[in-house]
Amino acid sequence: MKSVTQRARDLRRRFHVKPHAAVDLEALDPAETSHVGDKETAKAQTEEDALAIDALQDRLFAEGRRALLVILQGMDTSGKDGTTRAVFGRTGPLGVSVTSFKKPSEVELSHDFLWRVHKACPQRGTIGIFNRSQYEDVLIGRVRKLASREVIEHRYEQINAFEDMISSSTHIVKFMLHISKDEQKERLQSRLDNPDKNWKFDPSDVAERKLWDDYLRAYETMLQRCSTAIAPWYVIPADKKWARNAAVATIVRATLEEMDPQYPKVDFDPAAITID
Amino acid sequence: MKSVTQRARDLRRRFHVKPHAAVDLEALDPAETSHVGDKETAKAQTEEDALAIDALQDRLFAEGRRALLVILQGMDTSGKDGTTRAVFGRTGPLGVSVTSFKKPSEVELSHDFLWRVHKACPQRGTIGIFNRSQYEDVLIGRVRKLASREVIEHRYEQINAFEDMISSSTHIVKFMLHISKDEQKERLQSRLDNPDKNWKFDPSDVAERKLWDDYLRAYETMLQRCSTAIAPWYVIPADKKWARNAAVATIVRATLEEMDPQYPKVDFDPAAITID
Repeated sequence: MKSVTQRARDLRRRFHVKPHAAVDLEALDPAETSHVGDKETAKAQTEEDALAIDALQDRLFAEGRRALLVILQGMDTSGKDGTTRAVFGRTGPLGVSVTSFKKPSEVELSHDFLWRVHKACPQRGTIGIFNRSQYEDVLIGRVRKLASREVIEHRYEQINAFEDMISSSTHIVKFMLHISKDEQKERLQSRLDNPDKNWKFDPSDVAERKLWDDYLRAYETMLQRCSTAIAPWYVIPADKKWARNAAVATIVRATLEEMDPQYPKVDFDPAAITID
Repeated sequence: MKSVTQRARDLRRRFHVKPHAAVDLEALDPAETSHVGDKETAKAQTEEDALAIDALQDRLFAEGRRALLVILQGMDTSGKDGTTRAVFGRTGPLGVSVTSFKKPSEVELSHDFLWRVHKACPQRGTIGIFNRSQYEDVLIGRVRKLASREVIEHRYEQINAFEDMISSSTHIVKFMLHISKDEQKERLQSRLDNPDKNWKFDPSDVAERKLWDDYLRAYETMLQRCSTAIAPWYVIPADKKWARNAAVATIVRATLEEMDPQYPKVDFDPAAITID
């Protein structure tokens, strides 16, 4: 197996969105797997990375100075939940918080769009995972015209400024899980065919699916405008779950290794303390 | 192996605190392990129970009607973090939230003592774990005389009323992790001896330890006053980590099995939907 550093370098070369670079999502094959090897290798590597992430999280928690925020975006059924489980399923529950952003409540709507996001940011020492995020406000917000074009245009800058603000204590990494329209069809169909999965199906998903191309354009604009040096976007091929999980796990692990959290020094002399 | 139902029945018979019953913690051996068999069996059973809890949590989430709140209390080093990891380490991160209650902030102190607790209660479909809880306000609150005796006395009823209130959507189960004073000494000492664990040592723990007997009395009062039909307390022998984990995992699993969450019926006909 390649080292995590090598693997992360390869993945970043292929899937990192360079700041300001135009993105053509149709040119990126969602079924691509060559970056993670065969299925068996990828699964073993994901498990190894998940265990390493747990150990790194322990140090992050002990250090208590920085947080990691992982943002997951993607079309319906792209696997945001599954990725969370595969990558963070080995991390102690104490150090991980997952926030699923749904349709905003009345109270949330009565604030600026980043208010509920800020509240959910992870505290120092922990990993926060956003299942959907502030980016919904430039995705569904743009496609469904939930705000004027001027307001939407302004939001890209507001998001960048917001991420810059929280970056003083929080490291940020963002993944768009990129699936094909055909793969989505299969996944939606399996929710209909399997009675235990029916509850996951939302009839409104069919309506959103009809706007597929509009969403792709909104994602492309978002990626171009909001992949920054302090908060990079990655586009991860996600038709194959195992390839998707392996790529995200490697980048998260490499990010934590680069953060290199340290057990803190204490301000007392352990040898001088007696416990009666 | 015995079924989870049998195991839970045995554990409840031995460790459940009956409402209003007086508790003598000194009569309960913290090193007891006979209820879980040998170490190897207990560990295998914990892993099996943790996987079952994950599957049950999935159904709880799908159902979306009820939450489970697990409260962990115990002296310093009694293993609240370790129990969380052993019992919920297999549960998908999406469905679990852990709240560690520390010394209240100024804002928290400017509210009633249950305000911060209510905010942290788990939403329907999820499992919430409280690492310390409202009970600190009748433990350290009582021992350190942080409020008058009248105020403390009133809190037991306030807590019972609060738990009754949230029980409309939330199932509650409460564990006191019971360790011996000798075992605590060993665990504190190992935090001093191991440089990577120094950060876990708080010199104030030594001062609290001197009040051991006062804390035991405060625990006994709490157990007697706040073990109710809708929110039972269990006293779990916790000198042996594997025995502690096995007992908590079994009771949590049995509780979820009794809740018996169901995949919800949908209000549309899956067969009538076509995905283009």
